[in-house]
Amino acid sequence: MAVGSGELPVLHPIDGVKIGVASAGIKKVGRIDTVVFELCEGASVAGVFTLNAFCAAPVTVAKEHLASTSPRYLLINTGNANAGTGQAGLLNARNSCAALAKEVGVEASAVLPFSTGVIGEKLPVDKLVAAMPAAIAALSADSWERAANGIMTTDTRPKATSRQIEIAGRRITVTGISKGAGMIKPNMATMLGYVATDADIAPNVLQAMLDQSADASFNRITIDGDTSTNDACVLVATGRAGGEQLTEASGPVFDALQQVFNEVFLELAHAIVRDGEGATKFVAVEVTGAKDVSEALKVAYAVAESPLVKTALFASDPNWGRILAAIGRAGVESLDVAALTVHLDDVLITEHGGRAESYTEAAGAAVMKQAEIRIRINLNRGQHAETVWTTDFSYDYVKINAEYRS
Amino acid sequence: MAVGSGELPVLHPIDGVKIGVASAGIKKVGRIDTVVFELCEGASVAGVFTLNAFCAAPVTVAKEHLASTSPRYLLINTGNANAGTGQAGLLNARNSCAALAKEVGVEASAVLPFSTGVIGEKLPVDKLVAAMPAAIAALSADSWERAANGIMTTDTRPKATSRQIEIAGRRITVTGISKGAGMIKPNMATMLGYVATDADIAPNVLQAMLDQSADASFNRITIDGDTSTNDACVLVATGRAGGEQLTEASGPVFDALQQVFNEVFLELAHAIVRDGEGATKFVAVEVTGAKDVSEALKVAYAVAESPLVKTALFASDPNWGRILAAIGRAGVESLDVAALTVHLDDVLITEHGGRAESYTEAAGAAVMKQAEIRIRINLNRGQHAETVWTTDFSYDYVKINAEYRS
Repeated sequence: MAVGSGELPVLHPIDGVKIGVASAGIKKVGRIDTVVFELCEGASVAGVFTLNAFCAAPVTVAKEHLASTSPRYLLINTGNANAGTGQAGLLNARNSCAALAKEVGVEASAVLPFSTGVIGEKLPVDKLVAAMPAAIAALSADSWERAANGIMTTDTRPKATSRQIEIAGRRITVTGISKGAGMIKPNMATMLGYVATDADIAPNVLQAMLDQSADASFNRITIDGDTSTNDACVLVATGRAGGEQLTEASGPVFDALQQVFNEVFLELAHAIVRDGEGATKFVAVEVTGAKDVSEALKVAYAVAESPLVKTALFASDPNWGRILAAIGRAGVESLDVAALTVHLDDVLITEHGGRAESYTEAAGAAVMKQAEIRIRINLNRGQHAETVWTTDFSYDYVKINAEYRS
Repeated sequence: MAVGSGELPVLHPIDGVKIGVASAGIKKVGRIDTVVFELCEGASVAGVFTLNAFCAAPVTVAKEHLASTSPRYLLINTGNANAGTGQAGLLNARNSCAALAKEVGVEASAVLPFSTGVIGEKLPVDKLVAAMPAAIAALSADSWERAANGIMTTDTRPKATSRQIEIAGRRITVTGISKGAGMIKPNMATMLGYVATDADIAPNVLQAMLDQSADASFNRITIDGDTSTNDACVLVATGRAGGEQLTEASGPVFDALQQVFNEVFLELAHAIVRDGEGATKFVAVEVTGAKDVSEALKVAYAVAESPLVKTALFASDPNWGRILAAIGRAGVESLDVAALTVHLDDVLITEHGGRAESYTEAAGAAVMKQAEIRIRINLNRGQHAETVWTTDFSYDYVKINAEYRS
């Protein structure tokens, strides 16, 4: 199941980025599971990675390589996360980079590795290396949709988006893909996300822009509260659109680019939630009137991750008592429950610590039947607002995770 | 489903405590849903209550009454939680106490009210009041099992235990009941728990003993991470066993009583986990080698509440990668993942940041097939240890919570 049509828009190529895919037979024979990105010389690259202490070997190696040089290749495999694999896993990640580097004639540190799939199993490096020539031979600017398909695991559909805007008289293109459906509560990044633009942006500015965009998108979604070991997100700026390089994190060009990055990242993050494991609902938990960001997020996540709220969403049951209970246990100090209000979309359900006078079960039920729902909580004690996106909890979530070894 | 036989032991009566049950038809006609405890004059009573900010009206009233006088009656109803009901809910809780008080000839403040069931609906006070004479007429010292049945909601079986020990030449009896199966992550208490003894204990000492016992039992279990609005636990000491009153929180008598209370509370808390909604496994998550209590609990709860770990437990799949991922996101500062070890019962699964050399899938699978499992995590960085008990996550959890309005 998944929410919304999931139809992909036209994915504009990015000048300076080529993508090749291949089938290494890592988990299933014949499935596309290997994706190589080739970035033009001089491209700026920024990355954000999981904060899970058990971060995967490729995350460690990608961070090292990104810090030491300007990357020219991204090497991504699905079917095996190369996480929880100790020293041997690090060696396998490094060997994979070295093999690709040799094939294309760059330093090993110019390759960033990414893996997603089963945790705790040995990465079959031989299979991955054997597939590299095919992926390199297939390198093309038009393969964004193939790449979106090639990085999927329990995803039921590819996730990608693209934008073109005019900035300072030049047409700038931004295209990106993402993947992820379970073990989703990103912390600095999503499961995997790759976004590129032909704008010319200095690496340090690009990193600041990525941090902001990822924080407002991938860091605001949760499917099951389980932060992955492999989260990684990369933003590439090839500079091929021409014009002056953006070297300051301010000004109208910066603002326009940040805005389009924010939009692209949010769309990719939402696509992950819409395709959440077993999802039948796409739910925005909007908290307003909070004293600070922290308490807004506490309340939003408590509601978004409550198994009882999520099963009520699955049942389309306007069981607002469970929403109140989740708000009440969110750990907000001196919360005045009589002062807050809760709406389902535009239907006021709670005020003065209980059911609103105007509320009718029919009105609540009508909203809960929708595939897309906003749970709006106004704490009425401050000026801060945060939104977190999530899904419901269905039989299929249990089925997928009881049957699939992720 | 539930784990273990659930057979109740002999429940010894407590001199000074009588219990009457009745059917008020609050949710289902004919079901026992009203329980009245009568405590002898001079009994000490201690209570612990939910920390959920949206605490139910009866919790607010019970705390007020307990602070103002020595309780003589406990009035418990199921089928309606009287939570999220605002000012009207408080009035209903007070009116219920007043009605019972009038019937038995005490002050209203001598009655402690407790409710459990659907959140957000109006308590049908008329029905509850109408059932009071029958409950009072039924008052008997031998009704502990009836009471255990009478306080159930989605519980599939009653929970109760009883102990007799010799202390300072006198036979002391402790008997208790509890209920709860979902919305279980108690914070200072469980959903509902009532324990009584005939030992003579001063109220302030009794409160200290209850705090310790509840903290080591009800405050160490989680079924779905959802702290209830109605959690409450009461410990009564009637003093009818005779002897000197215990007025100091130390010494051999104190230690012996605390020990038996701890055992009784832990057994009642475990009974709740064994009967967790949809539970097919009873799981202890034991964390050792932690720097402090806080980080031990962070890790234990991250593992115990991970939907991915819980669905793997349901599938009897030794998917230890999910355990590592949960440990890694628990928020322990500077966690050295290469230093920690993880066992399933006595099978070492992880060391040096990856799968143990000695581990075999067959050995892991054999443990996971059991109905009772210990996940043992040694952080190897300190001297603190904590255990949390939980269940798996099954289709039936979703079914129960998608179909039942709690």
